[in-house]
Amino acid sequence: MTRWGILAPGRIAHKFAQDLLHVPDAKLVAVASRDLIRAQEFAHQYGATYAYGSYEELLSCGELDAVYIASPHIGHYEHTLMCLRAGIAVLCEKPFAMNATQVAEMIDLARQKQVFLMEALWSRYMPTTLKALEIIESGAIGKVLGVKADFGFKAPYDVTKRTFNKSLGGGALLDIGIYPLFWSYLILGKPSQIKAQSVFGETSVDESTGMTLTYPGGTFAFLDCTFMAATRCEAYVYGEKGTICVHSRWHESKALTVEYPDGTSETHTFDRSTWGYQYEIEEVNACLKDNQLESKLWSLDDSINLMDLLDSVRHEIGLVY
Amino acid sequence: MTRWGILAPGRIAHKFAQDLLHVPDAKLVAVASRDLIRAQEFAHQYGATYAYGSYEELLSCGELDAVYIASPHIGHYEHTLMCLRAGIAVLCEKPFAMNATQVAEMIDLARQKQVFLMEALWSRYMPTTLKALEIIESGAIGKVLGVKADFGFKAPYDVTKRTFNKSLGGGALLDIGIYPLFWSYLILGKPSQIKAQSVFGETSVDESTGMTLTYPGGTFAFLDCTFMAATRCEAYVYGEKGTICVHSRWHESKALTVEYPDGTSETHTFDRSTWGYQYEIEEVNACLKDNQLESKLWSLDDSINLMDLLDSVRHEIGLVY
Repeated sequence: MTRWGILAPGRIAHKFAQDLLHVPDAKLVAVASRDLIRAQEFAHQYGATYAYGSYEELLSCGELDAVYIASPHIGHYEHTLMCLRAGIAVLCEKPFAMNATQVAEMIDLARQKQVFLMEALWSRYMPTTLKALEIIESGAIGKVLGVKADFGFKAPYDVTKRTFNKSLGGGALLDIGIYPLFWSYLILGKPSQIKAQSVFGETSVDESTGMTLTYPGGTFAFLDCTFMAATRCEAYVYGEKGTICVHSRWHESKALTVEYPDGTSETHTFDRSTWGYQYEIEEVNACLKDNQLESKLWSLDDSINLMDLLDSVRHEIGLVY
Repeated sequence: MTRWGILAPGRIAHKFAQDLLHVPDAKLVAVASRDLIRAQEFAHQYGATYAYGSYEELLSCGELDAVYIASPHIGHYEHTLMCLRAGIAVLCEKPFAMNATQVAEMIDLARQKQVFLMEALWSRYMPTTLKALEIIESGAIGKVLGVKADFGFKAPYDVTKRTFNKSLGGGALLDIGIYPLFWSYLILGKPSQIKAQSVFGETSVDESTGMTLTYPGGTFAFLDCTFMAATRCEAYVYGEKGTICVHSRWHESKALTVEYPDGTSETHTFDRSTWGYQYEIEEVNACLKDNQLESKLWSLDDSINLMDLLDSVRHEIGLVY
C-alpha cells in the first residue's frame, strides 16, 4: 500500500486524487496547501486523514511513502528538493522544473539520498503510448521516417493564472508544448537540430510556438502548441509501411489508429472512466514495491533530456524566465 | 471563346484537358509535345485540331488565345518566355519558375509585351478558398491569429520522375510545399521571419520540410510538406472567435467547416464532378474577355511574393538547384 501525500491541491490535484481512488494498493493520506481551509476541504473530499496549512508540515506527517507535487511550475524544483531531503519519494508534475540545471540538481539529490523520483509525465504511461511503441517495435509500420504532434486549446485570458503569467512560469511551451516535444523524444530521441518560432502576447509569454526538429538518422519532427486556438491535438508516427495516429486529444487518448498505404486501417481502443492519471500512479506503486529508484519507462535521464529540449527551444524563441 | 493550346501533355495536362471540356467558351485547339505521337494521341483523346512534335511549333498555330504550360518546373521559365515573346497569353503551372529572378523576368516580359500571364495556382480559385476568405472578411471568426496547413503524400520512389530528381527541379517544397506557403501568404501576407528544416533523401531533394513563419501583426503559420507519408492535408485559419478547417485534401477540397468555441460548427460544401481545374480556366477566360493582363485574385505580384517565400525557405534549408 502506497500512502500518498499531495502538495498543492489545485485543479490537477483534484483529478489525480479522483484517479487515485481507482488504484489498488494506494491511498491518499495527507494534503498540504498554503491555505489550511483549502487543504481541509480537499482532505475531506477525498478521505485523507491529514490536512496541513503549509507545505513544510507535510514532511512531518510520518505516514507518507510518496508525495505528488502539483504546485505551479516555478515551485517544482524547491518542493521536490524539500521532499527528497526528508527522504520521501516524489512524483512531480511536468515540467519537472524550470530548466535543466534545476532538474540536474533534483536528480543529483535523489540519487545521493537514494530516494525515488519521477516526473509526472502521465502520457508516457497511457495505454495508447505503450501500444504505439509496441506497434513500432513490431515492425508493422516499418522504419520510422518522422513524427508530428500538436497541442492547442483556447486558454481563458486571465493574468492571475499561470497560463499567461510569466512570473508563474506561464506560456504554451512549458505548459503544453512539452507534450509534442515528449512525443518527438519518445519516438526519435535527441535531435541534431532544433528550429522554433513563437508569437508572444502582451504578458511576454509564448502564446503559440512552432518547432521543427531533424535527427541524425534522417528523420523529422514537426510540432506546435498554442494557447490561442483548439488545434487537432493529434500525434502521428510516419513509417515506411504505415502511419500511427493517436486520436485527439492524444496526450490523454483512449484510441489510436494504424493506417496502411493500401487504405486499410486498424483501431485500438482503451476505454476508461478515469482521467488517466492512474497509470502513472500505478507505475510509482510498482517501482516502490520493487525498490526501484526511478521508472524504467520514463527515467531521470529521459526527464533531463526532455528538459534540455525545452531549454533549447526556449533559446531558439528567445524566452527567458 | 478562348482557344487553348497545351504545352507538354503529361499527367496534369490530362486533368486540365478533362476539366476544360466543362468550361463554356473554351476549347482545346492544339497540343505540343517533344514526342509527336504523344501529342497526336492527346489531341485525338480531347478533340484538339492540331498536334505538334515540338514546343516551338505550337507558336506557329495561329489559332491560339492562350497556352497552358504543363512542363516540369525547370521548363516553366523558358516556355513562358517563349509564348510571351510570340504574344500568346500564358497560364503556367506552379511553381511559376525555379526562383524569383526567373519570375521577375517573366513578369517584366509580360508587362512589356502587354500579354496576359497567370500562375496556375488552381487552389486560389477553388470555391472553398473563396469561401474561406469571405468568412474571414465577414468577421465571423474574428481577428485572425494564425494558420496551419500541410501537404503530404507517399510519393513512389522513381528517380526518373521529377519528384525525387533534382535535375528536374524535384523535392517536396517546390512541388507541394508551395501549397501550405500559398495558404499562409493568402491569409497573412509576407512574414517577418521564416525558419525551416528539411530531411534530404539520397537524391539530395528535400523529402520533408517543416516551416514556421511569424508576422509583423503577431500572427503565426506552422506549415509542412512531405513526399514520405500521407499526412492529413488540411488547412486551418484560427481566429479569435472561431476556426476554419478546409477539408482534406484542402488544396483541391470540396468542403470547409467553421468551428466555434461553443462547440457549434457549420460546413459549406461545393460538390463537383471535375478535378477542379475549371476554376482557373474560367478565371483566365474572364480576364481575357475583360482585357485584363493579370488576375485580380492571384496577381503577378502575388506570384513573385510567393516565389520569394519559396526562395527564403530554400535558403533556410540549404537547397540549391
